[in-house]
Amino acid sequence: MTEAPVAAVRIGDSEFDRDTAVTLREPGVYDIELSAGWTIINAVNGGYLLAVIGRALADSLPHPDPFTISAHYLTASQPGPAVVRTEVVRTGRTLSTGQASLLQVDESGQEVERIRVLASYGDLDTLPDDVRTAAKPPAFPPPEHCFGPQDAPRDGVVPGSSAIADRLWLKLDPDTLGWALGAPSGKGEMRGWFGLADGRDADPLSLLMTVDGLPPTSFELGIPGWVPTIELTVHVRCRPAPGPLRVSITTRNLAGGFLEEDVEVWDTADRLVCQSRQLARVRLK
Amino acid sequence: MTEAPVAAVRIGDSEFDRDTAVTLREPGVYDIELSAGWTIINAVNGGYLLAVIGRALADSLPHPDPFTISAHYLTASQPGPAVVRTEVVRTGRTLSTGQASLLQVDESGQEVERIRVLASYGDLDTLPDDVRTAAKPPAFPPPEHCFGPQDAPRDGVVPGSSAIADRLWLKLDPDTLGWALGAPSGKGEMRGWFGLADGRDADPLSLLMTVDGLPPTSFELGIPGWVPTIELTVHVRCRPAPGPLRVSITTRNLAGGFLEEDVEVWDTADRLVCQSRQLARVRLK
Repeated sequence: MTEAPVAAVRIGDSEFDRDTAVTLREPGVYDIELSAGWTIINAVNGGYLLAVIGRALADSLPHPDPFTISAHYLTASQPGPAVVRTEVVRTGRTLSTGQASLLQVDESGQEVERIRVLASYGDLDTLPDDVRTAAKPPAFPPPEHCFGPQDAPRDGVVPGSSAIADRLWLKLDPDTLGWALGAPSGKGEMRGWFGLADGRDADPLSLLMTVDGLPPTSFELGIPGWVPTIELTVHVRCRPAPGPLRVSITTRNLAGGFLEEDVEVWDTADRLVCQSRQLARVRLK
Repeated sequence: MTEAPVAAVRIGDSEFDRDTAVTLREPGVYDIELSAGWTIINAVNGGYLLAVIGRALADSLPHPDPFTISAHYLTASQPGPAVVRTEVVRTGRTLSTGQASLLQVDESGQEVERIRVLASYGDLDTLPDDVRTAAKPPAFPPPEHCFGPQDAPRDGVVPGSSAIADRLWLKLDPDTLGWALGAPSGKGEMRGWFGLADGRDADPLSLLMTVDGLPPTSFELGIPGWVPTIELTVHVRCRPAPGPLRVSITTRNLAGGFLEEDVEVWDTADRLVCQSRQLARVRLK
């Protein structure tokens, strides 16, 4: 699947929409069945979880779009039932701020908090058109010269062969794929084309998942293994145009067992639609 | 004052320490008198406020240092009494997560929330020494070739002539000072040497103030006026060595009435001690 998937499904009627659907139980409290379809190895993807929480907040706040959302990851989520409890912290004319917790019941029957979130929401459609950005889109080859999990041999040199790989259309820049061939570049960079496998276009909520959807830069730094997110903050700056996204991740500072991942997401109109940064833990040998 | 101030006072016994001192009222609740000494024009500096909250969290959590702290600014704080209410969200072996709110009583006698914070704390002294950073310190002239509010004519072309200017030792790179001479560079950059005027060395809590202590990059983008912070996230990555800090701020994306400020703070040992990003609102004309 070299070509970006054609939009066979619309926003609101796709796999991503069904798997992030929350059900209002009582004011501010939402039930969700966390899908096993968005797992990497055994962990539920942190970006998918943030999209679930972001959707609950969009319902509970008077503004629709996450302008800035910060998540602190407390314990590892499991596929299955979860509850999102939201609190409206402040409502304003152009921005409103909310808080949310995602919780699950563990084997012992105890409710355990998985993620705590703070976010300020606004309405992207009301922003002025003024753009004076100095940022330039990342330069890398077109999708037909990039590679994804589907291009790997059956045993999977690209260890994206988890459930989430079936839901994404991911084509990584060969310059950031050395790790998959046993020759990591040593640079903290990861770049690629990004879409949803069923062709659903991006929107502010799916961007919350996109920023955590590529392999970690630590692979290119020669560090295999899981890189658990401690905290992830996402700024959505613009409603993305239809079509595939370009995602660029940079790590400048790997030190003391932690690294940051800085993400930029660009749309087909060459707009920087989203910026994020996460602090993650690495296991150094 | 071209030379960095000599450490006349120690950490724990300085203006900054006195002005961020919180008093335990009851478990998790702290009283503070917000000092008028850290105001810019009429607003209390957001970094000073984050340091106050960070100090309350350091007291209430089992770990001492803010590894990652995210603040959403709700309403403008005033000098005077305030209360910080903290909640321990989770305690772990190496990290603990807390939440805090800073509140003040307004003229009508109502308690108003100013800032909501989520943070994960650890102990910087327990981190491994491993450093594989690709980041390089910013290159700019030594302090004697840089300029601060004290170098401005009495009327102050550098509009840092607020109370906070007396508490900081700030020497800005001339290449990012065009705005002060009516000729902004058009680049979203601000760089400078940073210290406390009484010579107190930096520590993780003072870094929370440092990241918000320089003039905004919007001045160099030709946009005068206040740039209120919506959200600020700080990662403290290393305990800073004694001596003056180098601070570098970059804005890539000014669009739709918002901009991001990415900050790096470097110590005298050439270590990247701190990274932050904030989303702020700009008033475009």
